[in-house]
Amino acid sequence: MDSLTYISVVSIITAGITIGFGALGPAFAEGRAVASALTALAQQPDASATITRTLFVGLAMIESTAIYCFVVSMIVLFVNPFWNYFIALAAGH
Amino acid sequence: MDSLTYISVVSIITAGITIGFGALGPAFAEGRAVASALTALAQQPDASATITRTLFVGLAMIESTAIYCFVVSMIVLFVNPFWNYFIALAAGH
Amino acid sequence: MDSLTYISVVSIITAGITIGFGALGPAFAEGRAVASALTALAQQPDASATITRTLFVGLAMIESTAIYCFVVSMIVLFVNPFWNYFIALAAGH
Amino acid sequence: MDSLTYISVVSIITAGITIGFGALGPAFAEGRAVASALTALAQQPDASATITRTLFVGLAMIESTAIYCFVVSMIVLFVNPFWNYFIALAAGH
Amino acid sequence: MDSLTYISVVSIITAGITIGFGALGPAFAEGRAVASALTALAQQPDASATITRTLFVGLAMIESTAIYCFVVSMIVLFVNPFWNYFIALAAGH
Amino acid sequence: MDSLTYISVVSIITAGITIGFGALGPAFAEGRAVASALTALAQQPDASATITRTLFVGLAMIESTAIYCFVVSMIVLFVNPFWNYFIALAAGH
Amino acid sequence: MDSLTYISVVSIITAGITIGFGALGPAFAEGRAVASALTALAQQPDASATITRTLFVGLAMIESTAIYCFVVSMIVLFVNPFWNYFIALAAGH
Amino acid sequence: MDSLTYISVVSIITAGITIGFGALGPAFAEGRAVASALTALAQQPDASATITRTLFVGLAMIESTAIYCFVVSMIVLFVNPFWNYFIALAAGH
Amino acid sequence: MDSLTYISVVSIITAGITIGFGALGPAFAEGRAVASALTALAQQPDASATITRTLFVGLAMIESTAIYCFVVSMIVLFVNPFWNYFIALAAGH
Amino acid sequence: MDSLTYISVVSIITAGITIGFGALGPAFAEGRAVASALTALAQQPDASATITRTLFVGLAMIESTAIYCFVVSMIVLFVNPFWNYFIALAAGH
Amino acid sequence: MDSLTYISVVSIITAGITIGFGALGPAFAEGRAVASALTALAQQPDASATITRTLFVGLAMIESTAIYCFVVSMIVLFVNPFWNYFIALAAGH
Amino acid sequence: MDSLTYISVVSIITAGITIGFGALGPAFAEGRAVASALTALAQQPDASATITRTLFVGLAMIESTAIYCFVVSMIVLFVNPFWNYFIALAAGH
Amino acid sequence: MDSLTYISVVSIITAGITIGFGALGPAFAEGRAVASALTALAQQPDASATITRTLFVGLAMIESTAIYCFVVSMIVLFVNPFWNYFIALAAGH
Amino acid sequence: MDSLTYISVVSIITAGITIGFGALGPAFAEGRAVASALTALAQQPDASATITRTLFVGLAMIESTAIYCFVVSMIVLFVNPFWNYFIALAAGH
Repeated sequence: MDSLTYISVVSIITAGITIGFGALGPAFAEGRAVASALTALAQQPDASATITRTLFVGLAMIESTAIYCFVVSMIVLFVNPFWNYFIALAAGH
Repeated sequence: MDSLTYISVVSIITAGITIGFGALGPAFAEGRAVASALTALAQQPDASATITRTLFVGLAMIESTAIYCFVVSMIVLFVNPFWNYFIALAAGH
Repeated sequence: MDSLTYISVVSIITAGITIGFGALGPAFAEGRAVASALTALAQQPDASATITRTLFVGLAMIESTAIYCFVVSMIVLFVNPFWNYFIALAAGH
Repeated sequence: MDSLTYISVVSIITAGITIGFGALGPAFAEGRAVASALTALAQQPDASATITRTLFVGLAMIESTAIYCFVVSMIVLFVNPFWNYFIALAAGH
Repeated sequence: MDSLTYISVVSIITAGITIGFGALGPAFAEGRAVASALTALAQQPDASATITRTLFVGLAMIESTAIYCFVVSMIVLFVNPFWNYFIALAAGH
Repeated sequence: MDSLTYISVVSIITAGITIGFGALGPAFAEGRAVASALTALAQQPDASATITRTLFVGLAMIESTAIYCFVVSMIVLFVNPFWNYFIALAAGH
Repeated sequence: MDSLTYISVVSIITAGITIGFGALGPAFAEGRAVASALTALAQQPDASATITRTLFVGLAMIESTAIYCFVVSMIVLFVNPFWNYFIALAAGH
Repeated sequence: MDSLTYISVVSIITAGITIGFGALGPAFAEGRAVASALTALAQQPDASATITRTLFVGLAMIESTAIYCFVVSMIVLFVNPFWNYFIALAAGH
Repeated sequence: MDSLTYISVVSIITAGITIGFGALGPAFAEGRAVASALTALAQQPDASATITRTLFVGLAMIESTAIYCFVVSMIVLFVNPFWNYFIALAAGH
Repeated sequence: MDSLTYISVVSIITAGITIGFGALGPAFAEGRAVASALTALAQQPDASATITRTLFVGLAMIESTAIYCFVVSMIVLFVNPFWNYFIALAAGH
Repeated sequence: MDSLTYISVVSIITAGITIGFGALGPAFAEGRAVASALTALAQQPDASATITRTLFVGLAMIESTAIYCFVVSMIVLFVNPFWNYFIALAAGH
Repeated sequence: MDSLTYISVVSIITAGITIGFGALGPAFAEGRAVASALTALAQQPDASATITRTLFVGLAMIESTAIYCFVVSMIVLFVNPFWNYFIALAAGH
Repeated sequence: MDSLTYISVVSIITAGITIGFGALGPAFAEGRAVASALTALAQQPDASATITRTLFVGLAMIESTAIYCFVVSMIVLFVNPFWNYFIALAAGH
Repeated sequence: MDSLTYISVVSIITAGITIGFGALGPAFAEGRAVASALTALAQQPDASATITRTLFVGLAMIESTAIYCFVVSMIVLFVNPFWNYFIALAAGH
């Protein structure tokens, strides 16, 4: 098994684990926020504008942590600096 | 075991784990959001329009994290860049 | 153990794990949603139409994550691209 | 240990794990739904028709995830495509 | 260790794990359902007919997931297709 | 280590694990059901007949999952089909 | 290490694990049942006869799962069929 | 490492694990029962006789599971049948 | 590594694990019992005699499980029968 | 496998794990904060300015821990000092 | 690695684990007891003498389990009987 | 693999784990503190000055534990004393 | 790797684990006690003297378990008896 | 891999784990204390002086456990006695 194979194998696993595990937290958190927003709406329908706005800002913040994971997952799959180095090395060989 | 076999094996496992584990969080979160929406509907039936709309936006946000996992799973199975490289290498060999 | 055997073994395990583990989340979530719907019905029988409709939409969303897992499980068992490649290779050999 | 043995061993384990683990989620979820239905019946006996109907639809949805696991378990035991391939190979040998 | 030994060993372990682990979920779920039924009976003794009927239907559904595990466990012990194949092979040898 | 030793070792471990782990769920569930029955009795002593009857039916259902584990444990120890096969083989040898 | 040693080692470990782990569930469950009985007695002292009787039946059911584990543990230590076979073999040797 | 050493090592570990782990459940359960008894006494001091008597019966039942573990632990340390066999073998050698 | 070293190593580890892990349960349980006693005292100061007496009996029962662990830990360290056997063997050698 | 390959492999895994795991805590925490803010808004709509401001400050603090993880993840991928050293070493070789 | 080194290594690890893990339970339990005492004081300041006395007795009981761990930890470090034996052996050698 | 490679590999992993895991606790804690502050604000808007001030002091204390982890992570990456020693050794070689 | 290296390695790990893990329990417990004290103060400000005094005694007791861990950690690092023995051995060599 | 490398590797890992894990407990505890203080402030604003003072004392106590971990982490990184010994040995060599 040469270096390129090692890096391929590790990159595939890492890409999957990062997003597979990293989606857990944001999903739970968004579920909680949405659940809380719905309870709040039922309790105070008049404040629906403020509640909805606050919910969307909050969801955006939470989604950002999912995005971090997705970004790292994509970097590892498509613009992996270590893979690029070894590809260049193999080409230059 | 050559490189192509390694990458095949790892890609299959990763595809399964990513979606198998990544579906856990969104499913729980959607269950929580729906449960909360139903409680809210029972408590404030008049606000059903706002509640339903907020629920759907929330479900869409949560589903997005499941989609991330599904996308990575499909990329790993069908447009895996590392697999393509080694296939090209094997073909060019 | 040649490549075909490795991929067979890994595909069988992955197919089982993916659906076996991936069914956990949706099942819990649907249980929660149904439980919440029944509580809501008991509390507000007049809103049963809205509650039932919201429940069904929610169940469909949650079931979708189980479907993702089932689809990946079936892909791995029956239209596995890596298996097809090596079968073609073995046939062409 | 030849390929057929490996696949046999892995198939047996996978069949057991898939249903053994996959039955956990649906069982819990059905327990929760039934418990909630009983509480709802005690609270609102007049709505028993709606509650029972919603419960049955919900149980059917939840049971479906257990069925997925059972189906994959049976496929792995009895119509395993990889096993069939190697059996054909061994017969044609 | 020949193939028959491997399959024996794996079948015994799988049979035990499948039912040993698979009984966990249904047992918990039935405990919850029965507990909920008893609470409901204490709260609304007049609805005992409906509650009991719903409980029995629910228990039957939950027990079904335990049955799945028991069936797979028995299949693995007594009508294991892989064992049969290798026994036939050994007999034909 | 010959086949008989392997099967002995694995059968002993499996017998212990199956009942040791499989007793966990039913025990918890029965504890919950009994606890709930006692609370119900304290709340509604007049319904003691219905409560006791429902409790006993429930306990029987829950105990059944423990029985499954015990049965598999006994099968593995005393009428293990794989052990019988190899004993016959060793005798016929 | 010969077969008798293997079986000794495995039997000792299994005997300990089975009862050490198998005592966990029944102990918790009995604690819950007793706790519930005491709460029930404090709430409804007049029903002490019914409560005590139900508690004892319940404790007996729960204890039965602990007995299963203890029985398997004793079988493995003192009337282990696999040990007996190999002892007979060693004696006959 | 000969058979006697293996059995010694395994017996020591098993004795410790069995009681170390087996004491966990009964201790928790007794803590729960005692806590519940104290709450019950504070709520209904007049029923202290019944409460104390029920508590002692319950503690005895729970303690019995700890005793099982202690007994197995002592058997493994001091009247271990496998150790006795090999000692006899070594003496007779 | 000879037998005496193996037994030393295993005895030290076992002694530590047994009491280190075995102290967990009793400590939690006593904390719960004491906490409950304090709540009971605050609620019903007049019953302090009964509460204190019941608490002490309960603590003694719970402490007994910690004592079991401590006793096994001390046996393993200071009157270990297996160690004594091998010491005698080494002395007699 | 030379040093550069080792460092590549480890860097890729670390980058994924750090952000994949490190996103869990902040996501949960933000979900909790947002949920609490929505409940607070529903309860005291007049204080929405203070609530929103406090929420944003809190989200910023929580997000900072996610940022730490993302920063370390990026450092490991793109400005890894150990990688740079070995690249310089390889170039100077 | 000779016997003395093995025993040193194992003794150091065991001493650390025993107290590091064994301090967990008592600490939690004391936290719970103190928390409960403070709540009790706030609720019934007049009973502060009884509450404080009961708390101190309880803390002493709980601390005793921590002391057991500390004692075993110190025995293993400073008066380890197995170490003494091998030191004597090495000196007498 | 020489010393420098080992230290590189270990430093990268440690840096990631330390901050990835160490961010979990502070993030949860800050989420809890912020959630509690928002609830407090909703309940007592007049005390917003005191609440906000106490919240900020508390967040600073909690953030300090995250800072510890970040500092150790940075030390390990950029001013690692062991790395410096071996670099000096390699340079002086 | 000679004895001194083994003991160094093990001592460093043990020192870290002991305090890193041993600080968990006391920290949680102190958090709980302080939280309870603050709730008590808010509920009964007049009893602040008794509450504060009881809190400090309790914190001292809880801190003592952390001190045990810290002491063992320091002993292992700085006055390790096993290290001293081998240093003396190496010096006398 | 010589002794210095081993100790370096182990020291780096230990330093990271100790603070990364050891920060978990104090962070949770401080979060709980701060949350409780804020709730107390909202409930009893007049007692803000006592509450704030008690909170700060409590936070200092909890922070002390984090400081222990940080101190051990720094000792291991910068004044490691085992490292110093081997450096002296290497220098004196």
